[in-house]
Amino acid sequence: MAIPPETFFLPANLQGSLQQRIRQLVAQGIVEGRFRAGEKMPSSRGLATHLGVSRITVTLAYAELVASDYLTSRGRSGYFVSSSAPLQPEFEPRPQAAADQVDYAIRTGARFSGTEMLKRPPDWASFRFPFIYGQADASLFDHQNWRQCALRALGKRDFEALTSDYYDRDDPLLIEYILRNILPRRGIEASSGQVLLTMGAQNALWLAGQVLTGPGVRTVLENPSYPSLRGILAQTGGVVDWVDVDSDGLPPEALPKDVDVVFTTASHHCPTNATMPMARRRALLDAASAQDFVIVEDDYEFEMSFLKAVSPALKSLDREGRVIYVGSFSKSIFPGLRLGYIVAPEGLIREARALRALTLRHPPGHIQRTAAYFLSLGHYDALVNRMKQAFKRRRLAMAEAIEAAGLCVAGQGGVGGSSFWMAAPEGVDTEILARDLHQEGVLIEPGRVFFDPANAPRNYYRLAYSTIPVGRIAEGIERIGVAIARAV
Amino acid sequence: MAIPPETFFLPANLQGSLQQRIRQLVAQGIVEGRFRAGEKMPSSRGLATHLGVSRITVTLAYAELVASDYLTSRGRSGYFVSSSAPLQPEFEPRPQAAADQVDYAIRTGARFSGTEMLKRPPDWASFRFPFIYGQADASLFDHQNWRQCALRALGKRDFEALTSDYYDRDDPLLIEYILRNILPRRGIEASSGQVLLTMGAQNALWLAGQVLTGPGVRTVLENPSYPSLRGILAQTGGVVDWVDVDSDGLPPEALPKDVDVVFTTASHHCPTNATMPMARRRALLDAASAQDFVIVEDDYEFEMSFLKAVSPALKSLDREGRVIYVGSFSKSIFPGLRLGYIVAPEGLIREARALRALTLRHPPGHIQRTAAYFLSLGHYDALVNRMKQAFKRRRLAMAEAIEAAGLCVAGQGGVGGSSFWMAAPEGVDTEILARDLHQEGVLIEPGRVFFDPANAPRNYYRLAYSTIPVGRIAEGIERIGVAIARAV
Repeated sequence: MAIPPETFFLPANLQGSLQQRIRQLVAQGIVEGRFRAGEKMPSSRGLATHLGVSRITVTLAYAELVASDYLTSRGRSGYFVSSSAPLQPEFEPRPQAAADQVDYAIRTGARFSGTEMLKRPPDWASFRFPFIYGQADASLFDHQNWRQCALRALGKRDFEALTSDYYDRDDPLLIEYILRNILPRRGIEASSGQVLLTMGAQNALWLAGQVLTGPGVRTVLENPSYPSLRGILAQTGGVVDWVDVDSDGLPPEALPKDVDVVFTTASHHCPTNATMPMARRRALLDAASAQDFVIVEDDYEFEMSFLKAVSPALKSLDREGRVIYVGSFSKSIFPGLRLGYIVAPEGLIREARALRALTLRHPPGHIQRTAAYFLSLGHYDALVNRMKQAFKRRRLAMAEAIEAAGLCVAGQGGVGGSSFWMAAPEGVDTEILARDLHQEGVLIEPGRVFFDPANAPRNYYRLAYSTIPVGRIAEGIERIGVAIARAV
Repeated sequence: MAIPPETFFLPANLQGSLQQRIRQLVAQGIVEGRFRAGEKMPSSRGLATHLGVSRITVTLAYAELVASDYLTSRGRSGYFVSSSAPLQPEFEPRPQAAADQVDYAIRTGARFSGTEMLKRPPDWASFRFPFIYGQADASLFDHQNWRQCALRALGKRDFEALTSDYYDRDDPLLIEYILRNILPRRGIEASSGQVLLTMGAQNALWLAGQVLTGPGVRTVLENPSYPSLRGILAQTGGVVDWVDVDSDGLPPEALPKDVDVVFTTASHHCPTNATMPMARRRALLDAASAQDFVIVEDDYEFEMSFLKAVSPALKSLDREGRVIYVGSFSKSIFPGLRLGYIVAPEGLIREARALRALTLRHPPGHIQRTAAYFLSLGHYDALVNRMKQAFKRRRLAMAEAIEAAGLCVAGQGGVGGSSFWMAAPEGVDTEILARDLHQEGVLIEPGRVFFDPANAPRNYYRLAYSTIPVGRIAEGIERIGVAIARAV
């Protein structure tokens, strides 16, 4: 018996072209068992008339369904549900118990969910004044070339790179480019055994933390510093000391004597934007040698140096293999890419590689290959260049607006970057300020989470300009000024 | 002064179209400082003649270079290196010290690199008889539709899904499809707070291991079982007991009394392919309730049930929230995708989600969205169907060849799958056998790594048929038979 055309209707919530929606409609009906093997489909003319679409649309959808074995075509007799079409199993799904008998908070010790992270509202892009850090700006991104590189990486020639289980390996094309073109810009020369790809800087810092620290190991964090580091180190069970940074970054003379590992953002301190002068870098490396500690250098955002030339990474001065260098494409391409890397002596990379394999194997091959093409075809350089020029204009507008509003800059970075570190008057709690401003379409980042929780000031905040259009900066800053004046 | 065309040559090792290679050539010259700001480029005609390419190719390359700000066009005067083109920094990269002063094997305790994993030669695809497990088969994969879905996920409408830092969140489209279409096939009904996306099953099992176990926690592994589980549990510092499986999988009555967590592959035991009967599943869940333990169910490869209908997952019988379910798209789409999921009570998902955020944040947005389209447009069902039919034919050929060669099957699975678990005669070391066969173009998987290392038999091996063409099976199996006869 033929299935009547009236059985079909096109729900508005289905996505895609008409042809795709018809295909999906038929496939779902088959999988859910509404249309059964051997049943005759409506004629393409009949279904087209019923749905109010052109006949060719239905014919193409049917042809595709034959190719994917949902339907078979019996010449002039028409289309039939294939006898080997996918089927739903016969058992009924049962809802999970409403009240679990196991208390997972107790059983797991809730060890991870307590970790404090920087959080932004998922709908940040719909805010008029998003002074938030680290998201991609659609108006600057080179969508067209990214798409072309991704498409090329989907080609038959790259089938293995796309689909293979690499286990603990990386895409040699991407590694090659990082070694030859990215690291030299930071003064670093390395071999392929000294580099490991990671799922962004977060994953790189986590791997370094796991491999280098553990119970009894003493680690130094800069105060303030990137909030996720705290969670990463809490998981290792080691001892964490906080050392206050000054306007030149981390002072080596303030390090405790028995430190084993130091995490630093020497070239561009997070969040104050301070650049560590060369003399202090040498002093830090001398201290590492004398006291036998190692250094994890998070060289985030070095690409965004548009005010003056960036200085070489700490890693480039490292003569003893004491520096573990962390880089990322999150700021220079986009964070959803989840692609970063570690550069370190082979002995350390070996451990990090084994741990990465254990936890996740490798970043998806398609992502790696797409990035390799985007980099090697020069699109990356052009994108970074475009971002630098836009950020420079925005920074100028920020500086003017901040001065006009009488706000206080606590750190702005000499080489560039994408944010200002700000101090509100003492007594202003910037978490409350942020909630007030949220109501007015302004997103700022309260500073408390960056500090040692034992003694965190509440009046700092960060203003980023990586995603806000230059034309909205003045009004946004003005609103912040008004809100602070109200809060004092 | 104009740069002479003779400065340019097209090295053979550059990839891409002629136009891309010219672009890359120019961009590299600029970044490396060979061509400087303000210098005039050769005319398109001059460069085309020199390189022996058409003039339009050079013109298009130049136009693209203007768009990405490497060059500027001054009308009829021609093209010039842009004054805001990207530049190499001025410092020289320095090679890392040849001999590191830090012994990272001692400092890190080499805790991870000792982990034994299943390894396949990276060039497995060039072998004539690859009886290896778990890679994608180019002859079955639906390349065209995957490409279309990926392309659609690269569209402007999906910019946020592509680029955003999701932090601890997942793509709602993919979650929706898993909840509505994948889990019901396993008899599981769940809500979005009960699902977490992971970087493949490896990452799911690792997260479950980290969240549920730790020092003092007693875990049971099936003997034999998936080798990476051992490494995952070693990292937690808990106690591991091995329990021998029989032809019905894990016997609940053999579990130690004080067990906290049981890892099982109930529906399709890895590597023996045994299916646990319903009565034993109920007994296992009753034991979990009586002894207050939880179960991690790795439901790998359930899609490949082509001999008879698959039975519902253990999770579908779980009335107390004791089962943590792990699924993956590695076998049904491809392993390089790195996409899997955990289904569990919300309290557990909360911890796993926080830990995932800490270690890597989230699987790349583009991967998630592409998979969501591929699934929801019905391509996934069609692909699985095609794979099942091919696997069925291959399995038949395997069974015949194995019988003809007089080899001994130790486990083959009643519902399907993609491998046979084999026993060579006692005394045959299958790791030596594998090395011999490797020379002859035959890849098999030695069984030792699947077992409790304290007492691992050496005569088992696995023969998979997920990537070997049906026409090569007979000859490959015959070679294995000959090699075993030689080894006895």
